[in-house]
Order: sequence, then structure tokens, then C-alpha cells
Amino acid sequence: MTRIRFQRSLDDLKEKLLVMAGLAEQAIQRAVEAYRVRDLSICDLVSRSELAINRLEREIDQSALDILAMEQPMAIDLRFILAVIKINADLERVGDAAKSISDRVRTMESMAVADLPVDIPRMAALASNMVRRALQAFIEADPEMAQSVLSMDDAVDGMNRAAHITLAQVMGTESHLAPQALNALMVCRSLERVADHATNIAEDVIFWVKGADVRHKASVDAAKVAAAQAD
Amino acid sequence: MTRIRFQRSLDDLKEKLLVMAGLAEQAIQRAVEAYRVRDLSICDLVSRSELAINRLEREIDQSALDILAMEQPMAIDLRFILAVIKINADLERVGDAAKSISDRVRTMESMAVADLPVDIPRMAALASNMVRRALQAFIEADPEMAQSVLSMDDAVDGMNRAAHITLAQVMGTESHLAPQALNALMVCRSLERVADHATNIAEDVIFWVKGADVRHKASVDAAKVAAAQAD
Repeated sequence: MTRIRFQRSLDDLKEKLLVMAGLAEQAIQRAVEAYRVRDLSICDLVSRSELAINRLEREIDQSALDILAMEQPMAIDLRFILAVIKINADLERVGDAAKSISDRVRTMESMAVADLPVDIPRMAALASNMVRRALQAFIEADPEMAQSVLSMDDAVDGMNRAAHITLAQVMGTESHLAPQALNALMVCRSLERVADHATNIAEDVIFWVKGADVRHKASVDAAKVAAAQAD
Repeated sequence: MTRIRFQRSLDDLKEKLLVMAGLAEQAIQRAVEAYRVRDLSICDLVSRSELAINRLEREIDQSALDILAMEQPMAIDLRFILAVIKINADLERVGDAAKSISDRVRTMESMAVADLPVDIPRMAALASNMVRRALQAFIEADPEMAQSVLSMDDAVDGMNRAAHITLAQVMGTESHLAPQALNALMVCRSLERVADHATNIAEDVIFWVKGADVRHKASVDAAKVAAAQAD
């Protein structure tokens, strides 16, 4: 395989991953819209997206394998292909999270509408934004942009924790709203998971571009602090 | 690199992945034990395991990259290395699930002990068993054993759904137990996630051994049925 053909196959791989990311992001937006307006026909769209996402995941993995099998890629290309394989798996799980949310919407059909003290569309917008930005960082090979995704994750974690506390209070004090509050809580949890996947993607981008592994840096730092305190 | 040295580096990679799996399984067992006896010192052990698991994840990824960079592996070896990379990521997330459970235990400290109608140790035993069996299938390159893990996942899903219904009822009817019930529900959710990771691992084993991609087979079949019905 010539270098030009090899480069083209890498570009194709990147292109497919961008389509995958677009599908995953759309699935989340649709699922949250289904939750907001309680529309089961949108849930059907989410289920169909999930099938398309699953098919594309296999196709991307196979393309990555084909490239590895045909050519002995150089270190930087290997890192890129490894990043694609990992980002692919994370995007597929964003699709799963969208499916989980739309499954929640289906169980809500029989419940009374409740005005709960939690802003799910805002949390969803932030989580989707993280996915979009992580992929943008991937396209532009921009580790600083990827780094900014890592900071956004704290905001989503904070929103999820706050929602958890508020909704647990609703369950305790207004028990007739417990099913709705529990559903909202599960939706928040799925969105927090989307943010986690965006974080994983951002870490993979940094790993690919910088060759340095930032994953678990925070926990390694925490371990150092703990060790220092133990001395 | 000679074929013998290459084979040895693959064996080393497999060995590291088994250590990783042992750590992940132990972390889940410890986290559930911490939940059962409400022991925060066990939570500290889980936090330490998580650090070790995170470090080992990086080490395994780097070893996989090194092997890919040094040698142009044949198709079957490529599939094996790809399987290791994916299983590695799933095991790291089993460690995350253990950490989530132990975080729940920490919030329980101030709550009264509640006897809830849910058998968390049983669900945990089943989920751990799935992880162990998926890794066993990997060691023995046994797709039938991997297949049996996929069937076990339905049992864990069923237990999780039943727990969800029962605990939601507790929240509605005995609101003073709502915080404990919510915690139990989150622990069930984490265990269901462990079972999902075991399922992913089993699918990767089948992909590696058979070269056939069973992932999403069920959803592809469902899509065919849906398409047939639409006709």
C-alpha cells in the first residue's frame, strides 16, 4: 500500500468516526426531547439510531483491523488507530445511554406530569456539548480543546450530584411523585455517563496527540497526596 | 523479533490482563462486602484498588501498542491484541463500578440500617461470576463458555428490573426509607453495569476466537423483524 493510499484509509476511518459521533449526539438530543415532551414516536427514532450506531461500530472496528493488517503503521499512526478504536467504543455507549433515557420515557407514559426541580435539558446540552467538543478536538488534533472537555466534566458531575440530592428529597417528602423523581434521577445518571464518555474521548485525543497518557492523572495525583499524608 | 519472542510478548500481555481481571473482581467483592457490613475501611481498600487498576490499564495499553509497533502481527494476533485492548477498557470500568458502590456506602454512614427487600449479595455474586467466566473463556479461547456469559446477563437484567420496581415501591410507601432504598437501587445499577462489561468481554472473546462479530446480533435480528413487520 502506498503512503498516499494508507493516508486515505486513515482519513476514511476518521470520516466514519465523525458520522458515528453525529449519530450518537443526535440520539442523545432526541432522547432528551422525548423525555421533555413525552413523545414515544421520538423514542422509536432513538431505537433506530441505536441499531445504526451498533452497525457502524462494527464497521469502524473492522476498518481499523484492516488497516492494521495491511500495513505496519508508524507509532503516531498506531496511536491514532488505537484512539479511533477506543473513541468508537465510547460513542457506541453514548448511543446506549440515549436508549436508556428513551426506555425511561416509555415507563413514564402512565404517570402524571410532574414539575420537578431539575433542569434536565440544561444538563443534556452540557453533556452533548462535551461530546461535540471532544470530537472537535479529535478532528483538529487539539489537546488544549480536549483538556477543556475534562474541566466541563466537573460541572456535569456537580449537576448530577445536586439533582440526586434534590430528587431524593422529593421522593421523601412527596411520595406520590416518587416514580417521576426516580425516572428523572435515572435520566440524570445517563447524562452523567455521556459526560464520562466524552471525558474518555478527550483523554484518548490527548494520548494520541501528545503521546502522554493523561488518563487517571487525577487519581495518580490523589494517590501521591494520600501517600504524602500517610508519611 | 523472532516468532518465539513475539509469542512470549503476547503471553505476557495475557498474563497482565488476568491480573487486571483479578483486581477488578476483587474490587467488586470488596465493595459489596463494604455495603453489606457498612465498613468504611473496606471502602478505602476499594479506592486503593481503583488506583492500581488505573495504573495497570495504562501499562497494558502501552504493551499492546509496543507489540503492534515492533511486529506486523498476523490477522489472528491482531484480533487478539484488539480484544485485549477492549477487555482492558471494560475491566477498568468494572473498577469504576466498584468505586461507585463504595461511594454509596460512604453516604450511608449517617442513615439508619434498613432491611430492604433486595438481595444485593446474590446479584453481586452473579455479576462477579460473569466477569470470572468471561475471562475464563478468554484464557481457554472458548466461545461456548463466552456464549454462556451472554445468557447470564438476562438474569442480572431481570434482577435489576425487579429491584427497581420493589425499591421504587418502598420509596413511595415508606418514605422514611427512601434514602436507603435509593442507595440500594444505585448499587443494583452498578452491578448491572458490571454484568454489561462482562457481556462486552464475552463478545470480544467470541470476536477474537471465531472472527465473527456477535456484537449487536440481537439488535440486528430485532431490526430484521421490525423491517419484516413494516413490509
